[in-house]
Amino acid sequence: MTNNERALQLHEEWNGKLSTTAKCEVKTREDLALAYTPGVAEPCKVIAKDPDAAYRYTIKANTVAVVSDGSAVLGLGNIGAKAAMPVMEGKCVLFKEFGDINAFPICLDTQDTEEIIKAVTYIAPAFGGINLEDISAPRCFEIEARLKEILDIPVFHDDQHGTAIVVLAGIINALKVTGKKMEDCRIVINGAGSAGIAIAKLLLTYGFLHLTLCDRIGILAKDTPDLNWMQKQMMETTNREGAHGSLADALAGADIFVGVSAPNIVTKEMVASMNRDAILFAMANPVPEIMPDLAKEAGARVVGTGRSDFPNQVNNVIAFPGIFKGALSGRAPQITEEMKLAAATAIAGLVPEEELNENNILPAPFDPRVCEAVSAAVRSHIR
Amino acid sequence: MTNNERALQLHEEWNGKLSTTAKCEVKTREDLALAYTPGVAEPCKVIAKDPDAAYRYTIKANTVAVVSDGSAVLGLGNIGAKAAMPVMEGKCVLFKEFGDINAFPICLDTQDTEEIIKAVTYIAPAFGGINLEDISAPRCFEIEARLKEILDIPVFHDDQHGTAIVVLAGIINALKVTGKKMEDCRIVINGAGSAGIAIAKLLLTYGFLHLTLCDRIGILAKDTPDLNWMQKQMMETTNREGAHGSLADALAGADIFVGVSAPNIVTKEMVASMNRDAILFAMANPVPEIMPDLAKEAGARVVGTGRSDFPNQVNNVIAFPGIFKGALSGRAPQITEEMKLAAATAIAGLVPEEELNENNILPAPFDPRVCEAVSAAVRSHIR
Repeated sequence: MTNNERALQLHEEWNGKLSTTAKCEVKTREDLALAYTPGVAEPCKVIAKDPDAAYRYTIKANTVAVVSDGSAVLGLGNIGAKAAMPVMEGKCVLFKEFGDINAFPICLDTQDTEEIIKAVTYIAPAFGGINLEDISAPRCFEIEARLKEILDIPVFHDDQHGTAIVVLAGIINALKVTGKKMEDCRIVINGAGSAGIAIAKLLLTYGFLHLTLCDRIGILAKDTPDLNWMQKQMMETTNREGAHGSLADALAGADIFVGVSAPNIVTKEMVASMNRDAILFAMANPVPEIMPDLAKEAGARVVGTGRSDFPNQVNNVIAFPGIFKGALSGRAPQITEEMKLAAATAIAGLVPEEELNENNILPAPFDPRVCEAVSAAVRSHIR
Repeated sequence: MTNNERALQLHEEWNGKLSTTAKCEVKTREDLALAYTPGVAEPCKVIAKDPDAAYRYTIKANTVAVVSDGSAVLGLGNIGAKAAMPVMEGKCVLFKEFGDINAFPICLDTQDTEEIIKAVTYIAPAFGGINLEDISAPRCFEIEARLKEILDIPVFHDDQHGTAIVVLAGIINALKVTGKKMEDCRIVINGAGSAGIAIAKLLLTYGFLHLTLCDRIGILAKDTPDLNWMQKQMMETTNREGAHGSLADALAGADIFVGVSAPNIVTKEMVASMNRDAILFAMANPVPEIMPDLAKEAGARVVGTGRSDFPNQVNNVIAFPGIFKGALSGRAPQITEEMKLAAATAIAGLVPEEELNENNILPAPFDPRVCEAVSAAVRSHIR
């Protein structure tokens, strides 16, 4: 049996990867009178007077909605809400197992931006946070921005910010390994969708100066036709030299490559044309932009991928459970740029100097210290 | 400490009465690769081709949304979505404990009929059924009817149909105890909101002929001013004599009183004016329309209430877990009138003839046979 066949069989056995569990007993009439009528009226009355008491008496304190419209699921594309369910259930499982946070899948049977915003606003009372997932760009940017304005609970698009935080953590440590200086680094990001743009933004916020976004058509510049509004906005802060050309042109003389794009599109020649001690995060999944052994042969010093069978795995599970745990436990109304930077720094800090090397720049996803460290970093930046 | 204080304290200790639990392990990279990426892509692909496979691979198979807009919560009225959460969480707990069904609270921060219908339609992919709860009349009638048209999963407003099913079960047995004949019975229902109207409809469907609806203003007739559209519709099948007058006028000569209204509004004199062996379901909560001892003193034979400290408790938990269990396990697209009648008959049948008496017309909520019996009855009526 292949792994894929085994995965399918297991999903049928599980018949849903989540269940709900009662935290209170209802074995007797007395139990029923306390957990349900008439006793339940008491917390209702308190919350009606003071909505904030919902955090004291309901699941809102520690529950996240995993929201998707199924428009950009894994590498599968626009498969819709029902077909996205196994992924969203899986995400909920990770929230529970890695962060001890209750999470429930909200798979929306609409891909209209306005309708998604309204639906999430309506369901918010039960939740302490909203994790957006697998929503296609550029809709995801508007949906997240608008929800952040409307809601008083954290809204976080993990494909964007989770990925960006872990990549930044990896780059922070890769700089230590290679001795490169942030100010001098030239970074090329291939893939100008949700993840690529969020990575670009976070790296700029962190302090990197020279950043070029590429897409299928090559280098993105101000005069590139058909940029979406977010890509246009990014042209204010990236590719300041106004370069034009292909991905290969962009990589010549670059220090860092970040790929959130397609398999096998980076060649050995392109890597060889980069500056010495090149750093690559080739995160196309399951087949990266270039396989680590090829990149190394061409002179790369640090190579990370999305895969667990190579060193330096960029896995969002390093970030999002701790991010939400910190935000929920500290009652943060938003997840700010400061919190993201603090999370990345905390993740990087989990690899001690003496263990740091080109094949060990990120903590392992199952490292039990990760969630607590990220959570504490996020909490300490709640204003 | 009073019971109310104790209930509040417990709700604070629970800090949410529900949690989500992972049904699959994610302790190793291999677990992660099966439950999440890349393995999870397999069930996604199958569902994308065959949406029905969601029942095989996701929580949809056994998960219900408990949906409320907080507009008519218990006796508390319109307290809104956040304040309704403790009740909806409690309902979810009952789904789990009595029916082994996963349930999650969807408390909607809108009371606009169209917006509620859209929101529930959008979130439906994760759910195998929709339990509407504590939505005010007459909006609840339209919301339920429209959602039944739109969705291919069961939609059930428990305040209406759960209550109606248990009342019908009680009446079926009360007729046996009193020897009254259905065709001759005159029934008065006080309270023409969601529960009262659903009870009226189900009793008419069962075969009762003489039914009068009353409300605060007294007997409802075709020419009563300010009837809502559903009450108007009910005037086609109730109060066929076109009677006018007060609740007291309606009760004179009646056989059965069903109250879903307000405390202490039925007097001993009114009960005394009813036919002999009068049957009363006085379900205002926590204080019934008339206390059972007073009703008995005035000549009533069978008295039921919503309270657990008197005989014949009308408790929806007798019905809804089994209703949904039957519908989900049999993949019923709707909960039909036949299923409701079958459920009521099954509930009545759980009290054996030899144990049947005026103080024992309904099975106890904690009777472990109830859910299975109701579920089997519902399942056998799926077409």
